[in-house]
This record gives sequence, structure tokens and C-alpha cells, in this order.
Amino acid sequence: MNLPSTAPAVVPLIAPTADAGLAARLAHAIDNKTKPRGSLGVLETLAHQIGLVQRTTAPAIEAPAILVFAGDHGVVAEGISAFPQDVTWQMVENFLAGGAAINVFAAQNGCTLQVVDAGVAHDFGPRDGLTDRKIAHGTRNFAVEPAMTPGQCTQARGAGAALVDALPGNVIGFGEMGIGNTTAAAALMHKLTGIPAAACVGAGTGLAPDGVLRKGRVIEAAAARHAGVTEPLDVLATFGGFEIAMMAGAMLRAAERRMVLLIDGFIVTSALLVAARLQPAILDYCVFAHCSNEHGHRQMLEALGGKPLLQLDLRLGEGTGSALALPLVHAAVNFLNRMATFASAQVSEKS
Amino acid sequence: MNLPSTAPAVVPLIAPTADAGLAARLAHAIDNKTKPRGSLGVLETLAHQIGLVQRTTAPAIEAPAILVFAGDHGVVAEGISAFPQDVTWQMVENFLAGGAAINVFAAQNGCTLQVVDAGVAHDFGPRDGLTDRKIAHGTRNFAVEPAMTPGQCTQARGAGAALVDALPGNVIGFGEMGIGNTTAAAALMHKLTGIPAAACVGAGTGLAPDGVLRKGRVIEAAAARHAGVTEPLDVLATFGGFEIAMMAGAMLRAAERRMVLLIDGFIVTSALLVAARLQPAILDYCVFAHCSNEHGHRQMLEALGGKPLLQLDLRLGEGTGSALALPLVHAAVNFLNRMATFASAQVSEKS
Repeated sequence: MNLPSTAPAVVPLIAPTADAGLAARLAHAIDNKTKPRGSLGVLETLAHQIGLVQRTTAPAIEAPAILVFAGDHGVVAEGISAFPQDVTWQMVENFLAGGAAINVFAAQNGCTLQVVDAGVAHDFGPRDGLTDRKIAHGTRNFAVEPAMTPGQCTQARGAGAALVDALPGNVIGFGEMGIGNTTAAAALMHKLTGIPAAACVGAGTGLAPDGVLRKGRVIEAAAARHAGVTEPLDVLATFGGFEIAMMAGAMLRAAERRMVLLIDGFIVTSALLVAARLQPAILDYCVFAHCSNEHGHRQMLEALGGKPLLQLDLRLGEGTGSALALPLVHAAVNFLNRMATFASAQVSEKS
Repeated sequence: MNLPSTAPAVVPLIAPTADAGLAARLAHAIDNKTKPRGSLGVLETLAHQIGLVQRTTAPAIEAPAILVFAGDHGVVAEGISAFPQDVTWQMVENFLAGGAAINVFAAQNGCTLQVVDAGVAHDFGPRDGLTDRKIAHGTRNFAVEPAMTPGQCTQARGAGAALVDALPGNVIGFGEMGIGNTTAAAALMHKLTGIPAAACVGAGTGLAPDGVLRKGRVIEAAAARHAGVTEPLDVLATFGGFEIAMMAGAMLRAAERRMVLLIDGFIVTSALLVAARLQPAILDYCVFAHCSNEHGHRQMLEALGGKPLLQLDLRLGEGTGSALALPLVHAAVNFLNRMATFASAQVSEKS
């Protein structure tokens, strides 16, 4: 079913993946592979999780896709970014030309890449390779007014869900581009977890320490201004970005469809934070790809109970952590499907 | 030049990769890619290192190979392994049949796999796919006598070097299989670093806590028995395994040929420890793939200054950590070669 991008986006009910019988069969299959029990560590946990998501002891990765959502942020007026706002659309052009890090890593690891204009403050015109779901030319400045209207937020979530419905595969990674969006993500984190703003902000694309302090003060002042806003969808509309809202809608839809969700950096995780406040069982479907070097990401992951596969000191966004983690997801599924068992290989078991 | 496997193995002189001019050109190339400076974290460090190893700003990964060296250990007579010794040859058969974890991960990540009998206590006969470099049917029990003769140790190192000479590519990963070889590796670590035996031993394939204590006591007693043995090659011959000595010889040769060396688990790292005591500059050529869950590996890595790419709680050996890290090595080279620069993509730089 394709939702038109203007349909009201109802939050779907996400079912937990728990299934005691299947979990026992998966544990048995994993333990009987020709290796000391538990010796594939995190890959065993991952194989188990993906088996539960796909409801099988023989999971398969089909047509993995990374969607990069781009949007601009009115809060850049507060001077909270090291790069000018034009970099958002310039980087979208770079994605379309194949020159960004995410292009390189997605191509290397056999992952399709879809670039979505969720709300960039620039007219691209009709462009091959660009999915136009622009809600508006950037959000408003949440330091002075809500970033978007409730209607825009709903529209963005619906557009994200519809994009997921059009995907052929069963694994989705999320990426983003948007000058100012670490500020929006930090504001969402502060509001939804109660962690002090100073612990939520970081250097983003490379802000100097005094800029990071200012960023924290901007968020504190905005949180005070919008103190009455507490429901997750209202927090999303007030502080979020169009790309964040579109990711949140896409994530909920992907989990509803029992896809595996690859979650990497600070901004992507903030979208998941909103989604998980609405439907906590979404976390059963999430593979945490990478712990970013952006200050605050580790605490945000802890708030979600997420244990990332990679720690590579990346702080780039774009979904790069997810593209780089994809071979580990394949490895988890492949060992489960392809390794011999002690019995089939006639290898002696533990004394 | 192909060394015959019986030639005396002279320790080659390994040159450091340092080159200030090239380092500056690499840093410039990396910093001008369309990303915030430093935002690719560890991958930037890795690209820089590989550039220095290959003496170019446009490095390339050619025909990566993993060599799995198998050998048996006389010290199993002391009851220091959870699995029976027959598992060594049974797992070699499993490698040849394609059913082990390393088969799955090497195939997935486009890496050839060569299985070498360095000294398994079993007659395989001539076998397709098995490289026969057997020094003897297992080492002797180092708890009572030296594991091998100096001549056997030299022969093993020479065989390892000759195998490297036959490789077409420029990246080599090391794997191993040998019941009892965590005990040999722990003994090498204890002797070469001075770290107490109790901190060097771990569960190996799954030893119970009392077995781990016994393993530590076996190493302490053997170290006391062979207290006069201190030179790295003598320590290798006294406590090592044929697979460990063959890896040490292969590593030295690979660095001499300016290949990239992928180092993963506890036993592979113990072979590097020997090689690095002989030629410290070998470390310039090493990419540390994984920090294993085997107790002692983290301290062994620290003794070498190695920072591993992955932390996946693996404790399997076979070179699995190296096979799993290979996509990250590709990613490092690929971003350096394929990403656009700020100038070429017309993206604005930092304000």
C-alpha cells in the first residue's frame, strides 16, 4: 500500500519481535556451528536478532537501501554551525554527482542510495536521482517559534512512510544532511531524555568551543520558551527538522513492515528517539551501526539501550556508519546460513 | 625471489614508512575531501598509513589474501584446552570443505583463503587446497622441553616467508588453528613482555576457570624451567608453535615487501610480538583488525601500541577478525581515491 505523501500519518503499532520458540531454535542453530560457543560474539547476537525480525532461522538480506534525507534549519540564524547553510544544497549536489563519502561506501558495500529533499532551502528543479519531498524551504527558527507546524510534521512523517513502502528490500539505513541539524537533534535529546543541554551539544561539523557553549545556551533558552511542549510528536514539530521528521516516519513504517533498521549517527538516532518514545518495540528492529564522535551520541545510545557495532570516531553523518556496518550484517546472516555444524563437518565437540 | 622452504631464514631489515613529504601530501588530500576535517576518524588514519606503506597518495588494495596456518602443540598433554587435539585436523578439513567461519567471511569480503599445514599431528596426504609445509607432527611439550629445535623454528620462518613471496597481492591477513595455541601465545606474551602469566592466560576455546588457573601455572612453571631463554627467536622456538613461527616469518617478509599486514586475534598478535621484538618498524605495516575477547589480548595490543578497528567480542581465531575488517580497509582507500574535493564539487568550506 502506498500512502500519498499528503495523507495523515497515523503512528503504526509496532509489535515486539520476541518469540520464545524461534529464539530457542535460533540459539540451537548458532551454538551448533563449528566454533566454540559464543565465539562469534556480537555477530551471534545480531544473527539472533535478525532471525527474530524476519521470523526465520534462515534470514536473508535483500536489496539493502540507504535513504539520505536533507533539510535546512531556521535555527542556523543563531550562529550554531561551523559551515554556511548553502553547504546543505551543495552537498545534495555532491550526493547526486557521486562525490560524497556515503556514495563511496554505499557503492562499495552493495547498497542502493536514495537522496531525498525533505526541506532544503534551495530550488533544485526536477533532477534525476533526487526524490523531491520538500515540505518547505527549511524549518523556522525554533529559538523564536516552532520549527514546523503540526501539519508539516505529519506530512513529513507520511512522506517518510511512503518512501519505505516503495522499497523492494528488507534492510534500510538512514542518512541525513542538514547544516544546523546537530542543534535540532540535541534539542530533541534534551527535551525527550531530560539530559542537560550542555551534555547534548557537540562540535557538529567543527564548531569551536565557544560556539558549542552558545549552541547549548540556544537550546536551553528555546526549551524554556517551549516549556509546555512535552509529547513526542509535539517536541518533534517544535525542535525537529523536516529530514528528522521524515526519518521518524520512515523508521516506524520500516519496523511495521519488519525490516531491519540501520541506525548510525547523532541525528539519525534523534529521529529514532522520537519514534521509540511513540513505539518502544521499534528498538527490536534496530541495528546500531556506529557510535559517533559527536558529543552526546553515546548518552543518546545509552538512553535507547543501543550497543553500536562500530566505533570508528566518525562524525560525518550521511549514513556513513550504516554503510560501513553493512558487511557485518551480511556476516551475521552468512555465518548462520553457510557455516557447517559440528555434526555435518564431523568435528569433535568440547571435551 | 623464492626462498626454498629449507633455506635459513635471515631476519630481514624492515624500514620505517615515515616520509614527511608524502605524509604532508596525504594529509592535504584527506583534508580536502568533501567532509568536515577529521570526520572520517579512524578511516583517515588508516588511509594515511596505507599511503605511506604503498608510497603513494593513491593507494590500492590488490588481491587480499588470508593465510590460515594450522599446527598442533605438545603442551596439550598438560590438559590446557577445552577441546581435544583432533579438532585441529578436523577443523583443517572443515576449512578445506568451506564450512568454517573464515571461509564464509573471506568469501563474502572478496579475499582468497590459503590453508597451510604448518605442523598438524595428522596425515592429510596430498590434498587439493591444502598447502603442506608440515615441520613435524606437532611441537613438543614446552612444559618439559623446548617446543621445537632452533632448526625447526628457522625452517618454519623460512616457509612462511616463501609463502608470502608467492602471493600476487599487497594485503595479507593471518589466521591460525591449533588446539593449545592460546597457551603457547600466552607463554610468548609472558616471556616477551614480562606481564604476569595469570594476566596472559584466558579461556581459549572455552576453558572453565579452574582450567585457566592451571594454564597459568603451566606457563609459570615452564617459564621457570626455561628461565635462561630470553632472545626473541629462542623464546619463539622454546614456547611457540609451528604455525606461530611460520606466521612470524611471513609477517617479516610481508613488511619487507611493503605489504599491508592485517593482525587480528591473540595468537596472530603473539607472532607479531616476536616479529616486532626483532624488527620494531614492522608495526608501521600492521593494521590491527580486532580486539579479541580472549583475556590478555587487550594488554598484548597495548604492548604493541595497536589500536584495533573492530571490537566485536570475537574469540575464534582463524583470521576472522581480519576478514571482517577488510571492508574498512577498502573504505579507507576508496574514500581517498573516489571522494570529491571541496573545489571539485564546489562545496563551501568552513566559515
